[in-house]
Amino acid sequence: MAKAKPKNKEASSVQKLNDILAIASRRGFFFQTAEIYGGRAGFYTYGHIGTLMKRKFENLWRSYFLSLHDNFWEIESNCILPEPVFRASGHIENFNDPLVECKKCHFRFRADQLIEDSGFNMESFELDEINKIIKEQELKCPKCGGELSEAKWFNMMFCTQLGFNGEIAYLSPETAQQAYLAFKQEFEATRKKLPLGLAIIGKAFRNEISPRQLFFRLREFTQAELQIFFDPSKLDSISEEAWREIKGYKLRVKFAGSNDVTELSCEDLNKKGLPRLYLYYLVAVQRFYLDLVAIPRDRFRLRELGEAERAFYNKIHFDVELLLDTLGGFKEVAGVHYRTDHDLKGHAKVSGKNLEIFHEGKRFIPHVIELSFGIDRNIWALLDIFYDKSKEQSDTAVFRFPPRVAPLDLAVLPLVNKEGIPELAREVYMQLKERFTCVYDDAGSIGRRYARNDEIGTPYCITIDGESLD
Amino acid sequence: MAKAKPKNKEASSVQKLNDILAIASRRGFFFQTAEIYGGRAGFYTYGHIGTLMKRKFENLWRSYFLSLHDNFWEIESNCILPEPVFRASGHIENFNDPLVECKKCHFRFRADQLIEDSGFNMESFELDEINKIIKEQELKCPKCGGELSEAKWFNMMFCTQLGFNGEIAYLSPETAQQAYLAFKQEFEATRKKLPLGLAIIGKAFRNEISPRQLFFRLREFTQAELQIFFDPSKLDSISEEAWREIKGYKLRVKFAGSNDVTELSCEDLNKKGLPRLYLYYLVAVQRFYLDLVAIPRDRFRLRELGEAERAFYNKIHFDVELLLDTLGGFKEVAGVHYRTDHDLKGHAKVSGKNLEIFHEGKRFIPHVIELSFGIDRNIWALLDIFYDKSKEQSDTAVFRFPPRVAPLDLAVLPLVNKEGIPELAREVYMQLKERFTCVYDDAGSIGRRYARNDEIGTPYCITIDGESLD
Repeated sequence: MAKAKPKNKEASSVQKLNDILAIASRRGFFFQTAEIYGGRAGFYTYGHIGTLMKRKFENLWRSYFLSLHDNFWEIESNCILPEPVFRASGHIENFNDPLVECKKCHFRFRADQLIEDSGFNMESFELDEINKIIKEQELKCPKCGGELSEAKWFNMMFCTQLGFNGEIAYLSPETAQQAYLAFKQEFEATRKKLPLGLAIIGKAFRNEISPRQLFFRLREFTQAELQIFFDPSKLDSISEEAWREIKGYKLRVKFAGSNDVTELSCEDLNKKGLPRLYLYYLVAVQRFYLDLVAIPRDRFRLRELGEAERAFYNKIHFDVELLLDTLGGFKEVAGVHYRTDHDLKGHAKVSGKNLEIFHEGKRFIPHVIELSFGIDRNIWALLDIFYDKSKEQSDTAVFRFPPRVAPLDLAVLPLVNKEGIPELAREVYMQLKERFTCVYDDAGSIGRRYARNDEIGTPYCITIDGESLD
Repeated sequence: MAKAKPKNKEASSVQKLNDILAIASRRGFFFQTAEIYGGRAGFYTYGHIGTLMKRKFENLWRSYFLSLHDNFWEIESNCILPEPVFRASGHIENFNDPLVECKKCHFRFRADQLIEDSGFNMESFELDEINKIIKEQELKCPKCGGELSEAKWFNMMFCTQLGFNGEIAYLSPETAQQAYLAFKQEFEATRKKLPLGLAIIGKAFRNEISPRQLFFRLREFTQAELQIFFDPSKLDSISEEAWREIKGYKLRVKFAGSNDVTELSCEDLNKKGLPRLYLYYLVAVQRFYLDLVAIPRDRFRLRELGEAERAFYNKIHFDVELLLDTLGGFKEVAGVHYRTDHDLKGHAKVSGKNLEIFHEGKRFIPHVIELSFGIDRNIWALLDIFYDKSKEQSDTAVFRFPPRVAPLDLAVLPLVNKEGIPELAREVYMQLKERFTCVYDDAGSIGRRYARNDEIGTPYCITIDGESLD
């Protein structure tokens, strides 16, 4: 696997990054897809250990977030969706990156990266500014030195054709639209109650021009998203019981425009204007990370995105960010988005169908709060945060995963291969296998087997020795 | 949802098909994707009940097949793969359907379906024969009556472009190739042991020209495939213990060229030339269906595909077929394929990489037995087989799913909403929820609630009444 060369980073974090990549590949966490064909940027395969870990994280997410309400459900839809869906969602118009082409060799580049790599900063993401910098700084093609074209927008969705009469379709760049498309049918099938939560754990696809940050900019990735449809008149009113439960709870927040994380109670945040229903889900998300996944508190923050940063349809937007050494700072792994009725309204308009519902005597289009998680980013974050290479044992690397996210629950190790020990160990293993993810490992010295399990972060090893027989 | 009009079928099976489609849509099993945009043939969304059922089936498959051997693992890879992968696999050359175009309106049709719909039979799938029939029978465009073009091959993979320099890539038409690409890395990561099993539960994509048979010809579908890599010298030698276990076991087999199902022991089948390792997995698959999923014995058969029917790279090929009323006969839901070293050899050739391994003193390319399941087809088969509309209760339809495949494990129903009953019912529900998939249902009469749960095949309903309080 090619070594990563991140910029502006301390040697220790580059070292850590390369250490993790080496273990990941060697032990079957993940590796580049189609490596025998040279691989392709932005495409990774989860090996057998990585897949155990990914499934476990997905199951943890599923059981936790779906249990927040009796009317939250998982659905599953299609990656390929017809073109009008993305006219309605705004992706055809807005989901673009700036591109420049070499007039000589015709190679194409992502304009903002080319400018950044040439040592210049961009103030905004406008084509005018990009063209101005390229012209003023006389930037050339990094491949052949040729002259560069004017910048233009490049749509980041993967395009394909349906059937053989040339109908245009796209691969979903987010699972969210699939839930909006299914809303009306599911609202009926779940007997017309609000809130209704529709979760999707599925693939999303973005034709990133030059994917650089490993699992943080994949071209094919897994999202876990929960779309919560609710009556907008109830945005600031949750049950007394729920409010009592969260009002004293402190959220770790970094406000837009501030550099500091502050811990504020929901009561205080509500006074500052954040609605109670939105706070309820911020609390749920923070609890997921701190209590379930067991992320150290100081590595977690909720970052508010200001009006200039967030998508125009998000009225409130906080990202979940985790502090990652390998990527040199806090990085986004999830987000809580108040999308209003933007999406359902868009689909009603483009499809010509009425998406209003009748609920508790009123007719309206529900609003949506979206909880959106990048599964692969979270997996990377776990590798980063729970990697431990202490100085005492400088040649052994160890993952100290909390049990809920460790790939394996436990390993059964017969101390020696004689005197009835393997038989007993095998029996213990077969019993534990029913309830836990575990391996039976009898190859090599006991020390090597412990080291092997440390390396993939197995929290418990059960050694069967002579005493176990008694 | 549009009503299906299958041909050559009895009225009762059409009725059953339409009944199931109606329940499926109304109760959230599944419905057409993007229905507000008119839907697209071959694309379905699983609603909240269908997703529970699909997950349960996938988990059953995963836990059963991965537990067949300590060295069987799940991995996860990409839907989008670069073009050379499919040159190596043969999909670019061979994965084609015959197409004709109207010279006047330029609409395109699948040639074999057009011929069949015009009341003619095809003996083979050759372009020559297709063109001959079209010419001799003077077939015209069904849309506008225009003259038809010569037939040509149309590749059934969905094509897209990677990055923005126009590199061609395809959506995987089967998950199998992903496992072959990962073989070398996973063989190393699992410490060079054979057999090695790599399972993938993932999406596959086929640009079917006119998808007709519901879940049996989807354009986007889920496969569960297990690729078992083994030393070909051991094809006919399994452990004595394993052979003792299966040699008397009777498989329900329909041989190529025969119309009858016969039950033959593995010992007899081995004498007829089927190798022991292959038989071992046929037994595993039959047990999965008969013992775990609880399919009635007479609805199950293993159909051998003769040399003319099977893909050229499959040396032995049995399909699992289930008898489905709604589709008028036995239909394929899975297959067991002895693919030899066809795929790894192909990838070695096109990539130029040596894919031989060194194992127990020998250097060779492993052979592969593939267990391949269409998840969606299996879900449809369960709906078909376990649907029950008895004459006594002609207005209520019921699914009698075996508990292992029912969407919900149980429902908790408080008999009345008073006298402490809801509180107790809620308590019972919260406890059961930890271990089972269950719902709490207090809306409407107890009779309606039972009917509602019958309709989605919930095997157990727990009613909490006055006596429960004691």
